[in-house]
Amino acid sequence: GDPAKGKVLAKQCQTCHGIDGIAKIPIAPNIAGESQIYLELQLKHFRDGQREHEMMTVVARDLTNTEIEDLATWYASIQVTATLPE
Amino acid sequence: GDPAKGKVLAKQCQTCHGIDGIAKIPIAPNIAGESQIYLELQLKHFRDGQREHEMMTVVARDLTNTEIEDLATWYASIQVTATLPE
Repeated sequence: GDPAKGKVLAKQCQTCHGIDGIAKIPIAPNIAGESQIYLELQLKHFRDGQREHEMMTVVARDLTNTEIEDLATWYASIQVTATLPE
Repeated sequence: GDPAKGKVLAKQCQTCHGIDGIAKIPIAPNIAGESQIYLELQLKHFRDGQREHEMMTVVARDLTNTEIEDLATWYASIQVTATLPE
Protein backbone atom coordinates (compact mmCIF):
# COMPACT_ATOMS: atom_id res chain seq x y z
CA GLY A 1 0.00 0.00 0.00
CA ASP A 2 0.90 3.71 -0.04
CA PRO A 3 2.07 4.89 3.41
CA ALA A 4 1.56 8.56 2.56
CA LYS A 5 -2.09 7.95 1.71
CA GLY A 6 -2.33 5.75 4.78
CA LYS A 7 -1.02 8.56 6.98
CA VAL A 8 -3.78 10.83 5.67
CA LEU A 9 -6.42 8.14 6.21
CA ALA A 10 -5.05 7.68 9.74
CA LYS A 11 -6.70 10.99 10.69
CA GLN A 12 -9.77 8.91 11.47
CA CYS A 13 -7.70 6.60 13.69
CA GLN A 14 -5.67 9.15 15.61
CA THR A 15 -8.13 9.85 18.40
CA CYS A 16 -7.66 6.35 19.82
CA HIS A 17 -4.52 5.01 18.10
CA GLY A 18 -2.56 8.18 17.30
CA ILE A 19 -0.98 8.94 13.95
CA ASP A 20 2.13 7.32 15.47
CA GLY A 21 0.26 4.18 16.43
CA ILE A 22 0.77 4.57 20.19
CA ALA A 23 -2.60 4.23 21.90
CA LYS A 24 -4.08 7.45 23.27
CA ILE A 25 -6.80 5.72 25.34
CA PRO A 26 -6.38 2.70 27.63
CA ILE A 27 -8.75 0.35 25.80
CA ALA A 28 -7.14 0.92 22.42
CA PRO A 29 -4.05 -1.07 21.43
CA ASN A 30 -0.79 0.30 20.13
CA ILE A 31 -0.75 -0.47 16.41
CA ALA A 32 2.63 1.06 15.59
CA GLY A 33 4.91 -1.40 13.85
CA GLU A 34 2.35 -4.19 13.62
CA SER A 35 2.90 -6.22 10.47
CA GLN A 36 1.10 -5.33 7.25
CA ILE A 37 -0.66 -8.70 7.21
CA TYR A 38 -1.80 -8.48 10.84
CA LEU A 39 -3.23 -4.99 10.39
CA GLU A 40 -4.97 -5.88 7.13
CA LEU A 41 -6.47 -9.02 8.67
CA GLN A 42 -7.82 -7.16 11.72
CA LEU A 43 -9.38 -4.38 9.61
CA LYS A 44 -10.94 -6.93 7.24
CA HIS A 45 -12.23 -8.99 10.17
CA PHE A 46 -13.76 -5.88 11.73
CA ARG A 47 -15.29 -5.08 8.32
CA ASP A 48 -16.77 -8.55 7.76
CA GLY A 49 -17.69 -9.17 11.40
CA GLN A 50 -15.21 -11.94 12.26
CA ARG A 51 -14.02 -9.55 14.92
CA GLU A 52 -16.32 -7.12 16.62
CA HIS A 53 -15.87 -3.90 18.54
CA GLU A 54 -18.40 -1.10 18.87
CA MET A 55 -16.01 1.51 17.44
CA MET A 56 -13.93 -0.54 15.04
CA THR A 57 -16.93 -2.23 13.43
CA VAL A 58 -18.24 1.21 12.45
CA VAL A 59 -14.83 2.56 11.39
CA ALA A 60 -14.06 -0.46 9.22
CA ARG A 61 -17.45 -0.87 7.59
CA ASP A 62 -16.84 1.53 4.68
CA LEU A 63 -13.10 1.01 4.20
CA THR A 64 -12.10 -0.22 0.75
CA ASN A 65 -9.37 -2.84 0.30
CA THR A 66 -7.01 -0.14 -0.97
CA GLU A 67 -7.67 2.06 2.04
CA ILE A 68 -7.07 -0.91 4.33
CA GLU A 69 -3.78 -1.67 2.55
CA ASP A 70 -2.64 1.98 2.74
CA LEU A 71 -3.53 2.26 6.45
CA ALA A 72 -1.74 -1.01 7.17
CA THR A 73 1.32 0.13 5.25
CA TRP A 74 1.45 3.40 7.20
CA TYR A 75 1.27 1.81 10.64
CA ALA A 76 3.56 -1.05 9.61
CA SER A 77 6.15 1.51 8.48
CA ILE A 78 6.54 2.85 12.01
CA GLN A 79 9.57 1.46 13.83
CA VAL A 80 9.01 0.40 17.44
CA THR A 81 11.56 -0.41 20.11
CA ALA A 82 10.80 -2.23 23.35
CA THR A 83 12.65 -1.53 26.59
CA LEU A 84 12.22 -4.14 29.32
CA PRO A 85 11.87 -3.01 32.94
CA GLU A 86 15.01 -3.53 35.06
CA GLY B 1 -0.68 -8.35 38.58
CA ASP B 2 2.90 -9.50 39.25
CA PRO B 3 5.19 -8.71 36.29
CA ALA B 4 7.87 -11.15 37.45
CA LYS B 5 5.38 -14.02 37.42
CA GLY B 6 4.04 -12.71 34.13
CA LYS B 7 7.52 -12.81 32.63
CA VAL B 8 7.83 -16.50 33.59
CA LEU B 9 4.37 -17.25 32.20
CA ALA B 10 5.39 -15.44 29.00
CA LYS B 11 7.57 -18.43 28.12
CA GLN B 12 4.47 -19.87 26.49
CA CYS B 13 3.99 -16.65 24.48
CA GLN B 14 7.53 -16.03 23.33
CA THR B 15 7.50 -18.13 20.19
CA CYS B 16 5.05 -15.75 18.51
CA HIS B 17 5.12 -12.60 20.67
CA GLY B 18 8.60 -12.69 22.22
CA ILE B 19 9.31 -12.15 25.90
CA ASP B 20 9.79 -8.49 24.88
CA GLY B 21 6.40 -8.32 23.18
CA ILE B 22 7.77 -7.66 19.70
CA ALA B 23 6.18 -10.12 17.28
CA LYS B 24 8.44 -12.87 16.02
CA ILE B 25 6.09 -14.05 13.25
CA PRO B 26 4.20 -11.85 10.76
CA ILE B 27 0.67 -12.86 11.77
CA ALA B 28 1.25 -12.19 15.47
CA PRO B 29 0.88 -8.65 16.83
CA ASN B 30 3.37 -6.76 18.92
CA ILE B 31 1.97 -6.77 22.46
CA ALA B 32 4.76 -4.80 24.13
CA GLY B 33 3.41 -1.80 26.02
CA GLU B 34 -0.24 -2.54 25.35
CA SER B 35 -2.34 -1.38 28.29
CA GLN B 36 -3.14 -3.75 31.15
CA ILE B 37 -6.87 -3.50 30.44
CA TYR B 38 -6.49 -4.16 26.69
CA LEU B 39 -4.32 -7.25 27.25
CA GLU B 40 -6.62 -8.64 29.95
CA LEU B 41 -9.68 -8.10 27.78
CA GLN B 42 -8.13 -9.83 24.76
CA LEU B 43 -6.99 -12.86 26.79
CA LYS B 44 -10.40 -13.12 28.48
CA HIS B 45 -12.18 -12.80 25.12
CA PHE B 46 -9.97 -15.54 23.65
CA ARG B 47 -10.73 -17.63 26.74
CA ASP B 48 -14.52 -17.16 26.57
CA GLY B 49 -14.75 -17.18 22.77
CA GLN B 50 -15.71 -13.55 22.13
CA ARG B 51 -12.53 -13.45 20.09
CA GLU B 52 -11.26 -16.47 18.22
CA HIS B 53 -7.92 -17.53 16.84
CA GLU B 54 -6.73 -21.10 16.33
CA MET B 55 -3.62 -20.58 18.49
CA MET B 56 -4.86 -18.04 21.05
CA THR B 57 -8.09 -19.91 21.77
CA VAL B 58 -6.02 -22.91 22.85
CA VAL B 59 -3.42 -20.87 24.74
CA ALA B 60 -6.04 -18.89 26.66
CA ARG B 61 -8.39 -21.76 27.49
CA ASP B 62 -6.67 -22.80 30.73
CA LEU B 63 -5.37 -19.44 31.91
CA THR B 64 -6.64 -18.36 35.33
CA ASN B 65 -7.60 -14.74 36.03
CA THR B 66 -4.43 -14.30 38.07
CA GLU B 67 -2.25 -15.65 35.26
CA ILE B 68 -4.02 -13.31 32.82
CA GLU B 69 -3.39 -10.35 35.13
CA ASP B 70 0.28 -11.26 35.63
CA LEU B 71 0.84 -11.73 31.88
CA ALA B 72 -0.90 -8.43 31.15
CA THR B 73 1.17 -6.65 33.79
CA TRP B 74 4.41 -8.00 32.32
CA TYR B 75 3.70 -6.94 28.75
CA ALA B 76 2.18 -3.63 29.89
CA SER B 77 5.37 -2.89 31.82
CA ILE B 78 7.44 -2.84 28.64
CA GLN B 79 8.12 0.65 27.34
CA VAL B 80 7.71 1.16 23.59
CA THR B 81 8.83 4.04 21.44
CA ALA B 82 7.61 4.74 17.92
CA THR B 83 9.78 6.32 15.24
CA LEU B 84 7.92 7.64 12.20
CA PRO B 85 9.47 7.16 8.75
CA GLU B 86 11.08 10.31 7.26
